[in-house]
Amino acid sequence: MEGKNWSDLWLSYKKNGGKNAGSVTVQFEGFLPENRVMNSAKKELENGLSGLGTAVLIKKNDAIAKEGYSVTGTKELVTIEASDENGALYGAFHLLRSSECGEDITALKISKAPSNPLRMMNHWDNMDGSIERGYSGRSFFYEHDDIIINDRTVDYARFMASIGINGVVINNVNVKWAATDLITTRFFDKLAVLSGIFADYGIKLYLSLNFASPIELGGLAVCDPLDKDVIAWWEGKIKEVYDRLPELGGFLVKADSEGRPGPFTYGRTQADGANMLADVIKPYGGIIIWRCFVYNCTQDWRDTKTDRARAGYDYFKDLDGDYHDNVILQIKNGPMDFQIREPISPLIGGLTKTNQMLEVQIAQEYTGHQIDLCYLIPMFKEILGFKTYCKEENDTVADVVSGRAFGNKLAGMAAVINTGNDLNWTGNDLAAANLYGFGRLAFDTDLSAEEIAREWTKLTFDLDEALEDKLVNMLLTSRETYEKYTSPLGIGWMVTPHDHYGPSVDGYEYSRWGTYHRADHLGIGVDRTDKGTGYAQQYYQPNAEMYNDPKKCPENLLLFFHHIPYSWKLSSGQTLIQYIYDSHFEGAAEAEQLQKDWEAFEGKVPEKTFECVKERFVRQVYNAHEWRDQVNSYFFRKSGIADEKGREIF
Amino acid sequence: MEGKNWSDLWLSYKKNGGKNAGSVTVQFEGFLPENRVMNSAKKELENGLSGLGTAVLIKKNDAIAKEGYSVTGTKELVTIEASDENGALYGAFHLLRSSECGEDITALKISKAPSNPLRMMNHWDNMDGSIERGYSGRSFFYEHDDIIINDRTVDYARFMASIGINGVVINNVNVKWAATDLITTRFFDKLAVLSGIFADYGIKLYLSLNFASPIELGGLAVCDPLDKDVIAWWEGKIKEVYDRLPELGGFLVKADSEGRPGPFTYGRTQADGANMLADVIKPYGGIIIWRCFVYNCTQDWRDTKTDRARAGYDYFKDLDGDYHDNVILQIKNGPMDFQIREPISPLIGGLTKTNQMLEVQIAQEYTGHQIDLCYLIPMFKEILGFKTYCKEENDTVADVVSGRAFGNKLAGMAAVINTGNDLNWTGNDLAAANLYGFGRLAFDTDLSAEEIAREWTKLTFDLDEALEDKLVNMLLTSRETYEKYTSPLGIGWMVTPHDHYGPSVDGYEYSRWGTYHRADHLGIGVDRTDKGTGYAQQYYQPNAEMYNDPKKCPENLLLFFHHIPYSWKLSSGQTLIQYIYDSHFEGAAEAEQLQKDWEAFEGKVPEKTFECVKERFVRQVYNAHEWRDQVNSYFFRKSGIADEKGREIF
Repeated sequence: MEGKNWSDLWLSYKKNGGKNAGSVTVQFEGFLPENRVMNSAKKELENGLSGLGTAVLIKKNDAIAKEGYSVTGTKELVTIEASDENGALYGAFHLLRSSECGEDITALKISKAPSNPLRMMNHWDNMDGSIERGYSGRSFFYEHDDIIINDRTVDYARFMASIGINGVVINNVNVKWAATDLITTRFFDKLAVLSGIFADYGIKLYLSLNFASPIELGGLAVCDPLDKDVIAWWEGKIKEVYDRLPELGGFLVKADSEGRPGPFTYGRTQADGANMLADVIKPYGGIIIWRCFVYNCTQDWRDTKTDRARAGYDYFKDLDGDYHDNVILQIKNGPMDFQIREPISPLIGGLTKTNQMLEVQIAQEYTGHQIDLCYLIPMFKEILGFKTYCKEENDTVADVVSGRAFGNKLAGMAAVINTGNDLNWTGNDLAAANLYGFGRLAFDTDLSAEEIAREWTKLTFDLDEALEDKLVNMLLTSRETYEKYTSPLGIGWMVTPHDHYGPSVDGYEYSRWGTYHRADHLGIGVDRTDKGTGYAQQYYQPNAEMYNDPKKCPENLLLFFHHIPYSWKLSSGQTLIQYIYDSHFEGAAEAEQLQKDWEAFEGKVPEKTFECVKERFVRQVYNAHEWRDQVNSYFFRKSGIADEKGREIF
Repeated sequence: MEGKNWSDLWLSYKKNGGKNAGSVTVQFEGFLPENRVMNSAKKELENGLSGLGTAVLIKKNDAIAKEGYSVTGTKELVTIEASDENGALYGAFHLLRSSECGEDITALKISKAPSNPLRMMNHWDNMDGSIERGYSGRSFFYEHDDIIINDRTVDYARFMASIGINGVVINNVNVKWAATDLITTRFFDKLAVLSGIFADYGIKLYLSLNFASPIELGGLAVCDPLDKDVIAWWEGKIKEVYDRLPELGGFLVKADSEGRPGPFTYGRTQADGANMLADVIKPYGGIIIWRCFVYNCTQDWRDTKTDRARAGYDYFKDLDGDYHDNVILQIKNGPMDFQIREPISPLIGGLTKTNQMLEVQIAQEYTGHQIDLCYLIPMFKEILGFKTYCKEENDTVADVVSGRAFGNKLAGMAAVINTGNDLNWTGNDLAAANLYGFGRLAFDTDLSAEEIAREWTKLTFDLDEALEDKLVNMLLTSRETYEKYTSPLGIGWMVTPHDHYGPSVDGYEYSRWGTYHRADHLGIGVDRTDKGTGYAQQYYQPNAEMYNDPKKCPENLLLFFHHIPYSWKLSSGQTLIQYIYDSHFEGAAEAEQLQKDWEAFEGKVPEKTFECVKERFVRQVYNAHEWRDQVNSYFFRKSGIADEKGREIF
């Protein structure tokens, strides 16, 4: 792999790897050495522990939970136990991680089982090589409407397995053009190879599906999910797919949204659509992941009663219990669209009889395009820790999406991934912390944001303790910094339309997307109480009551739920308008501080990394200044209320 | 030409044409019948007068002005006299126009000479077939980086000649990619054919030039206009071009703006760049048209002293007199960019020792994309009639750009054209009135907007008097209607960025384009007085004083020159804010009225025309409502001042 144009991310094994592989002995007990996953585990251990010359035994133990593992070290031997191959592989990666983090592996004594059965990455890669909301170059899966398979594909699978990912959707949910043909003979051969590479690392391949395939591929007049010919077409098609790709995990479907076809076209429900496909795929063990992103995007900004935030719950709650057991609904963390701060989607836990999976976005669409530093794991921790009150106990989002709350076997977490074919995979080297962190968190939702940041830092760099602390701190504070200089108190948006980088306070204010701040000369915010759109009532009590009352509502979501006068006093004693000014000055200053902090890393991280991140911080500071000045000027011009501290507002 | 997929525009000869061509006798005296232009005139007369069976004599008369003509009718013979072929052709078209407008051609007794020596169309067509700011389909000059030549090309030349156009720039001023090769052997053969078709109709071909050609084509390191190698390269290149295209009129150049290369790169002046090319092209009789669109587009919105409106004058005034005599500066009508209302560029007449040409835009970039009806000739009449006070008399824009004011031989008018390969050429059938009107006005700046509208209506349709009046009235009021529902009192912009259709009040408010309205809770407008940016001082007195004083400033430009409180009383007695509300309600109501008025034309115009225009009015009404509601809501939310009439504002 000399001369390869991609980095090793957190698998460089810079401390204990890279020596003669023969120095590591890997033995098996109860597992077949020739098994493809065992083979991968062995290669990885030989590569990553060669500097230590350890002996490792990988041993089958049926008492261990599915995909779980234990690792027990002694002076002579480190033993990995698991009941299945994936567990063994994850145990091997745990051992490697411990080794690289400087732990004494001969003293290891841990056992782990994954929090979530499904731990998935969703690629929004298009077959022309572009990536929807991609900020790291072009796709490494596709170019010129064809599939790329090379050593990078293998490394990708290794990285994903090392953080516990067990499912990957390789194409954009908006399935068009060549991607529609992924379920045809045009691509089966290459997909079989790709599926095999994934299988070597315990990863199942999934495809996004074009719901209109019966029309576009089958030549039928309709794609009505209750139409007999349509069902028959899907039966033949799915049989053909599974004959060629027997390991396929299933399909991800986005229907009836943003111009994509779906069941609504034929007066059918989303359940009708999902269940039809689920029934057809069931004999093959496949699943249907149905994206809960269905809303009428022709909202009129003049209409203050219609509320996009309500749409998911309004559509899907009534069908709770109607979905077949190999359907899982994939629900975005918030009711809008991956803003820097949103309340939790009330569908999560709101549905009690339906398989559900949490969707987050590590592609930094609204959170800085992998130019601005924004470590998202603290946000994900908040989401997972949110008490839904859907039942007496075990009622957090983590409980619900893991299946613990309602006993679902299909459950888990998915991330819209932030990768591309850049050398460093993620545009900004530091954005890899989100890639790493999502996988680690999906596997173990009890890990803290700091633990994850520290692991990633240790694995990726070779820093002294002070610099490690500095970098971890930079990561941990970055989300609040970004929030401070962008849109305040949960209102979201205020972003350049289409592109979604940089400020445009009114950019989505008069649009058809349901994304309004409703600022006037007296105040700002959307009334989503029982006197407004009623969205707050979609939550269980006491959340509904909390959100409904501006005095009880968490302040960081105040403007999401309430229209608030600029003179409103926050708990800090600041008025709302002064808070807007102060937080924007603070956020921009913090961005400048991040840029300064990075200077300390010169010579301490690889030069390419240093230069790349340095250049990103220059752009982040520019962006933060634009946000600060545009937001402050907007509200000063609108309210006429001066900054108490007399700072420059334009 | 059966089955052709383009319309005949105003040359359908529906009244008196289309019969057996042999019924018309065309004779020549002093002109050679075999001359290419005479041949065109003869064909056109035979085609357009065949229903009348007239005899026409085309006679040379050296006493008549260049490109001028007289037409004298008797019962037996209509005589066209001219001193040159173009004049004879224009005379023939005059005769045809009179015939189709229902005049008695046997009683004709008129003589005309063009107001402007140069009457040009500028195409912003790209060689991939796209058109920058095109709203009428794709290019009919190019596709797939090649030149198209067919019967449509001939018809295009006929249309242009029929309205007096004598020069056409066939490629976008932003010269990139394949278009750079237009001055190479790759395209000479086809350009020679195209040039010939144009020459048949008295039209000179011009090309937009890539100032960086010495680098991109010649492999030189620089394109510095004072560099000896660069000059030598141009000498060779221009010789090569004229060897192959001896009829070429010359080159249009846009330099140092919007990312285009230019003399500034090398610390040279615009005059250095233009003069170098002009000297090289002089032996061949060619001219260099230099676009006065040079400004620093990296303005900071926070900076209230820098003013894009100043840039043209600031750059070019100092060089007045430095340009060689075969250079002509092409100056946009206003200092900004073709807004619905701008003051006249102070460069026009501000330059007294430099050839200058007026540039207007009939492509409706900011004026409704040929969806909204916006007949622009009334605007052009205002521009031409503006008294610059550059001298004691003959000081209007029309005087300056015609060359009358300062005795320039190179002078005239150019329009950024609104055509494409749509069936109707102009997207909206009614937008052809701007295409027709620009040519007619450039030829005869004394024609009124109404005369031109009426001519076009008569030539294009076959309506009874009441409907003709109705359509003429729709055209004549359309610009004010559009102005009312869009940006008020000369402030401009407030338009969706990039696309430039539809409202976005703050869309360009925090941009780097110098396009600000500076609205706050108390007022709106840009202070361009001597206490502000000083722009008003670029005019001669008494204009400078008039614009400098908000009480003397024409109200329709009030916000261009002054920052005015919402409570300011206009001459009507309305406050500024009430004017904003009222004009927007009025404008939208007028758009609705236009839509209703058009219903009367069903069955009275060709069905395709009726349906096309009907559909455009639907979109115009939608657009007018968006503008009305967004602008009114924006200012209501910002000012907190209610509409006196209690109408719905959101």
